[in-house]
Amino acid sequence: MEKISEYKCFGGRQLQYTHRSESLSCDMRFGIYLPPQAEIQNVPVLYWLSGLTCTDENFTQKAGAQRVAAELGIAIVMPDTSPRGDGVPDDENGTYDFGLGAGFYVNATEAPWSDHYRMYDYTVKELPELIEAEFPVTEMRAISGHSMGGHGAITIGLNNPERYTSISAFSPICHPMDCPWGEKALGNYLGSDRTTWAKHDASELVRHAEKQLPLLVDQGLADNFLVEQLKPETLEAAAAESGYALTLRRQEGYDHSYFFIASFIEEHLRFHAKYLADK
Amino acid sequence: MEKISEYKCFGGRQLQYTHRSESLSCDMRFGIYLPPQAEIQNVPVLYWLSGLTCTDENFTQKAGAQRVAAELGIAIVMPDTSPRGDGVPDDENGTYDFGLGAGFYVNATEAPWSDHYRMYDYTVKELPELIEAEFPVTEMRAISGHSMGGHGAITIGLNNPERYTSISAFSPICHPMDCPWGEKALGNYLGSDRTTWAKHDASELVRHAEKQLPLLVDQGLADNFLVEQLKPETLEAAAAESGYALTLRRQEGYDHSYFFIASFIEEHLRFHAKYLADK
Repeated sequence: MEKISEYKCFGGRQLQYTHRSESLSCDMRFGIYLPPQAEIQNVPVLYWLSGLTCTDENFTQKAGAQRVAAELGIAIVMPDTSPRGDGVPDDENGTYDFGLGAGFYVNATEAPWSDHYRMYDYTVKELPELIEAEFPVTEMRAISGHSMGGHGAITIGLNNPERYTSISAFSPICHPMDCPWGEKALGNYLGSDRTTWAKHDASELVRHAEKQLPLLVDQGLADNFLVEQLKPETLEAAAAESGYALTLRRQEGYDHSYFFIASFIEEHLRFHAKYLADK
Repeated sequence: MEKISEYKCFGGRQLQYTHRSESLSCDMRFGIYLPPQAEIQNVPVLYWLSGLTCTDENFTQKAGAQRVAAELGIAIVMPDTSPRGDGVPDDENGTYDFGLGAGFYVNATEAPWSDHYRMYDYTVKELPELIEAEFPVTEMRAISGHSMGGHGAITIGLNNPERYTSISAFSPICHPMDCPWGEKALGNYLGSDRTTWAKHDASELVRHAEKQLPLLVDQGLADNFLVEQLKPETLEAAAAESGYALTLRRQEGYDHSYFFIASFIEEHLRFHAKYLADK
């Protein structure tokens, strides 16, 4: 693990590292914000999963999350959104919604993706193990994300309820089994047998959840992707069916951008802080 | 004037426009944040001047200023840092510290710069006239900036004390007459007669200020440019000499980045709000 940069920020430290990932068979970059409290004690961690085309840097630079994390004493870990580098295959058409920057937080089973595209294992196991070995953090984890990363946060959280205290998402892809982004990615990474997709579909998981984690979702109503790709109504219907206590908030006038995330990230951090403190 | 984009942000609107600038003889882009209060009344304006290499977008995306502006009911205007476009000459060596992205907020008198590089007139007159004609704002103005833009904020503010309520700066170039960035820019834009440079030197202006505007400066002590380029001690000495009530804060561990600006922008906005409300 090698440090790339360090910036003092709200009394804490915004750090960027590169490391060799065994899961992904490539070098990976991540960001971590350590609040001032981490200088004297171990602190809980919020994992933030970004959306299509992002790297570890978008949330780091644009969300303004460090201010509240510094107040609450929460570390934030920001992984990249796919494997990268020489030898990592990309979509041959160079589209933005598959391949590099679009790992979808699954373990690919299909060639040529299965050698590197194992973001599920990386996010659930390898990265937390590294973070917990190398930084002053506890084993208390919350998870959040945006768009593709909102899909990642909900699916990873619900597949591993013993590992996270709480889940939140901005503008998540709620039903990837039935939207263009999801069908393209899951079809290519996991193959044509749709029964293998259900484990990575937020609505399917909420419909069959055995353990409920606290779940907060914010969705802007001026989001260009709302109707075709995001489909929060499917998540809402699944929650109603299974009795899952989902909090889904529709925010008038907000779109898919980081200006939306910045406007509400404080509420998400305070939501997670409550459960990180309770556990 | 044409709108490029609009995002809802903290209940207000983050807007980006392009317009034809008479002062600069080119098309210019700027950002403006209108807080929620601007929907029902005219609000005062903070002008933010960015540093070398920046456009109107850096502060818009990275400073996290909209949250506090929304609370306080202040609009923020973010101009670009130089003229741009076909026909606008750039440094022939393509350096980052002169030419495009490095207008230094002066009116160039030397060829080939004098046709377009008139950022002083643009910032002091043309842009505020446009803003005050087109948006729901009052004529109460404050000014702030970073690095080259901190130099711009202090020099423009002190040269026009009747036009601004208050000045603040992050990591300003305090004595451009005696540092590499300043000598290069002022020498090229204004020519070799250094007597014409003094009007654009924050330390010289503070030393001879007839009217004191409230002036807050934050400077990180881990800033790589501190000793060679920024020289806050010259501003401090000038203030001591003239009895100017400068507030200069040295911030341990902070560098020249937007992580520094984000950490303290709230205090700058609250500083300006006090004077914008008093006037």
